[in-house]
Amino acid sequence: MSDPWPRSARWTSTGLAVGGLAAADLAERFGTPLLVFDEADLRERMRSVAALFPRVAYAVKSMTCAAVIRAALEEGLDLLCASGGEVATCLRAGAPPSRVMLHGNAKTDDELALAVRARLAAVIVDDAEELDRLAAIARAAGASQPILLRVTPEVDVQTHEAIATGHAASKFGVPLAAAADVARRAAATAGVRLIGLHAHAGSQVLDVDAHVRVLRALLAVVNEAGIRPAILDVGGGFGVTYTDETPSALGAVASALGAVLDVSGVHAQLQVEPGRAIVANAGLSLYRVVTRKHARDRELVAVDGGMSDNLRPALYDARHDMAAVTPGDGPTERVTVVGRHCESGDVVADDVALPAGLARGDLLAVAATGAYTYPLASAYNRFGRPAVIGVRDGEATLWVRREDVDDMDRLDVILGSPWEAGGLRTAEGGTRT
Amino acid sequence: MSDPWPRSARWTSTGLAVGGLAAADLAERFGTPLLVFDEADLRERMRSVAALFPRVAYAVKSMTCAAVIRAALEEGLDLLCASGGEVATCLRAGAPPSRVMLHGNAKTDDELALAVRARLAAVIVDDAEELDRLAAIARAAGASQPILLRVTPEVDVQTHEAIATGHAASKFGVPLAAAADVARRAAATAGVRLIGLHAHAGSQVLDVDAHVRVLRALLAVVNEAGIRPAILDVGGGFGVTYTDETPSALGAVASALGAVLDVSGVHAQLQVEPGRAIVANAGLSLYRVVTRKHARDRELVAVDGGMSDNLRPALYDARHDMAAVTPGDGPTERVTVVGRHCESGDVVADDVALPAGLARGDLLAVAATGAYTYPLASAYNRFGRPAVIGVRDGEATLWVRREDVDDMDRLDVILGSPWEAGGLRTAEGGTRT
Repeated sequence: MSDPWPRSARWTSTGLAVGGLAAADLAERFGTPLLVFDEADLRERMRSVAALFPRVAYAVKSMTCAAVIRAALEEGLDLLCASGGEVATCLRAGAPPSRVMLHGNAKTDDELALAVRARLAAVIVDDAEELDRLAAIARAAGASQPILLRVTPEVDVQTHEAIATGHAASKFGVPLAAAADVARRAAATAGVRLIGLHAHAGSQVLDVDAHVRVLRALLAVVNEAGIRPAILDVGGGFGVTYTDETPSALGAVASALGAVLDVSGVHAQLQVEPGRAIVANAGLSLYRVVTRKHARDRELVAVDGGMSDNLRPALYDARHDMAAVTPGDGPTERVTVVGRHCESGDVVADDVALPAGLARGDLLAVAATGAYTYPLASAYNRFGRPAVIGVRDGEATLWVRREDVDDMDRLDVILGSPWEAGGLRTAEGGTRT
Repeated sequence: MSDPWPRSARWTSTGLAVGGLAAADLAERFGTPLLVFDEADLRERMRSVAALFPRVAYAVKSMTCAAVIRAALEEGLDLLCASGGEVATCLRAGAPPSRVMLHGNAKTDDELALAVRARLAAVIVDDAEELDRLAAIARAAGASQPILLRVTPEVDVQTHEAIATGHAASKFGVPLAAAADVARRAAATAGVRLIGLHAHAGSQVLDVDAHVRVLRALLAVVNEAGIRPAILDVGGGFGVTYTDETPSALGAVASALGAVLDVSGVHAQLQVEPGRAIVANAGLSLYRVVTRKHARDRELVAVDGGMSDNLRPALYDARHDMAAVTPGDGPTERVTVVGRHCESGDVVADDVALPAGLARGDLLAVAATGAYTYPLASAYNRFGRPAVIGVRDGEATLWVRREDVDDMDRLDVILGSPWEAGGLRTAEGGTRT
């Protein structure tokens, strides 16, 4: 299947419906831009990954909100956090600490102390320096912190450079050549308890074999170090469909990894850390056309959002499938859909086929916006971050409310302070009365 | 001068000082990452631009906070807003509406109505469709809204593609060939009052001649349309020094533009819209080293911030000058400074020379981070946006407070809702008690 849209998406005679609700009604009720999650699809993706691997930790950074965190917990997934802030949000959402792991290439002392104090399931230790630091913090707290040791697997994969994390010059993990030494040291260090190894090839990886190579790298470390880890975490990064890519065949990944582990003789549980594979395709974005214009050789359709709600096109040259909410059956035309930010790079989709004659007020839907959109959203140009809703069986639930000017201004401590606006100098140097 | 650091920056025997304050003390007092503005430098840059051009409007999007907005007003600059949200923030900060202009390629009806209702100095109308829409809104309100008409100058400049806005296929403005017609139409439309024309070449433009070509394009439209605009706005986009670029010679730009205008016989005031040229070099960022590691052929120094507080390196391949807060006089080494986000593209500075042996706890300063950093900041990985301070004459003032977990979670309406965390299924399919 290489359909980027949520499973409940239907193009009916009145246009796109998702979760049994007309997208046009959702746009009317919640406003646009709007990030819509198909909750049944989200949970089905969680369940299908959970059925394939002994241990699954949802990568919270891909979409950080309580509704998704709670769904992951309910569907049997643990939670993988990239910072103390993500841990705090997970705990607030109700996550048992025993189901939360913390990773990151440069954890602060505060984050390590939080992990120990909260009794998190594991800290994924990034290097020898952090190992010592964490061990000291844990010993001071009279604790023994379970850890996984992250290894740089030195696996090169085909993906965007910015999200390739497993190559030898990566900032993540212990270099492969040093990994066995550090693992042995970790096993012998008071204050920590080495329960596993971790490695990660990169993100949006479509090649099954990359994950197998990661596991082989970990097994080599296990054998060289002579350790018996309970968990071998091969990371996430499973590729999804944004336009027409064939997504990672997770069943094939699970089989291939299981076969390699079986013959290795190592008795460990495989763990994976999907984020994108769970949330990307369960989400779509709705925009309303604000205006359109002809610019030399381009037909430009401008919508009421852009790089502040989905940075992926500008940041990663990402492409997303896109459709009119009311597609009709007439002719199409090639248009470039731009956002309304004051920046030329603010392009939602370059050169896409959409129904001819799209006009102001029409709704557009962008596929596969569930991952790495909202968490990277900004207040740039003071539009405010979009609302996020979940839809299921004909019901819509607000998950994250739209950010308004009050929200955006609340950190500005000067704004609230008195100021005498009189007596300002004008541009001409005179005094404005 | 091609020094990217704030004018008050001094490397003393105890390290970097700015605004008469030791950077190390600022980091201790306000935490890191920290965005520090040299307020005297900021105001001096405002004054020097104001002295060169008859009309100057500060591009609020480049750094959107009350302290900078109020400084701009006090130093005689008007305010250029890219959205209704920016307008709202400026008005809240105390800006007289008569000193606020609104632009944008796809303004919503709400934004146009706000402009009319608030009696903004001008709306910079982006195309014919918006002209009609604004005119109707203004007539309905019994108003006559002053406008500038934005023209695509069809000037190609050397800058990053994402911020080149003046080329013919740009999403901004009326195509040059149609501009005179639309200008005449604007002049004859009830509900609006055409007070000027606007065009903009792009951002971080280092070439004086680009601005001259923009003005010539506007003058051609003036002559063809037979209009008498009071304002000719040639935009902003003046280049600054990030590492060693020679910045735009604003005096030369002013002279060249003035000379062209003089011989044209058109009696209009020149307006410019600097943003970056005012705030970029007045700001610097302070980070603390969290850890370092050797990865194949790279020495990696990881700091406690990254792409969530300065997206420019990841988004535009931007480079910033960087220095150790305590530089010392020993040998240097080439290092790559990375952030602590869970993403390989999170690089603060690739391959820079810094004092050898930088270690955990050391402070680094990044130059020229005053523009397009904080406004594009995100809550990615839930670090929270940094604090922003102003320093001047030995005093530091908090401008924008650090974003904490409470701030980041407050839009999440599910987080506040009750949830029964018991009875969760585990990854094994059993029930966790």
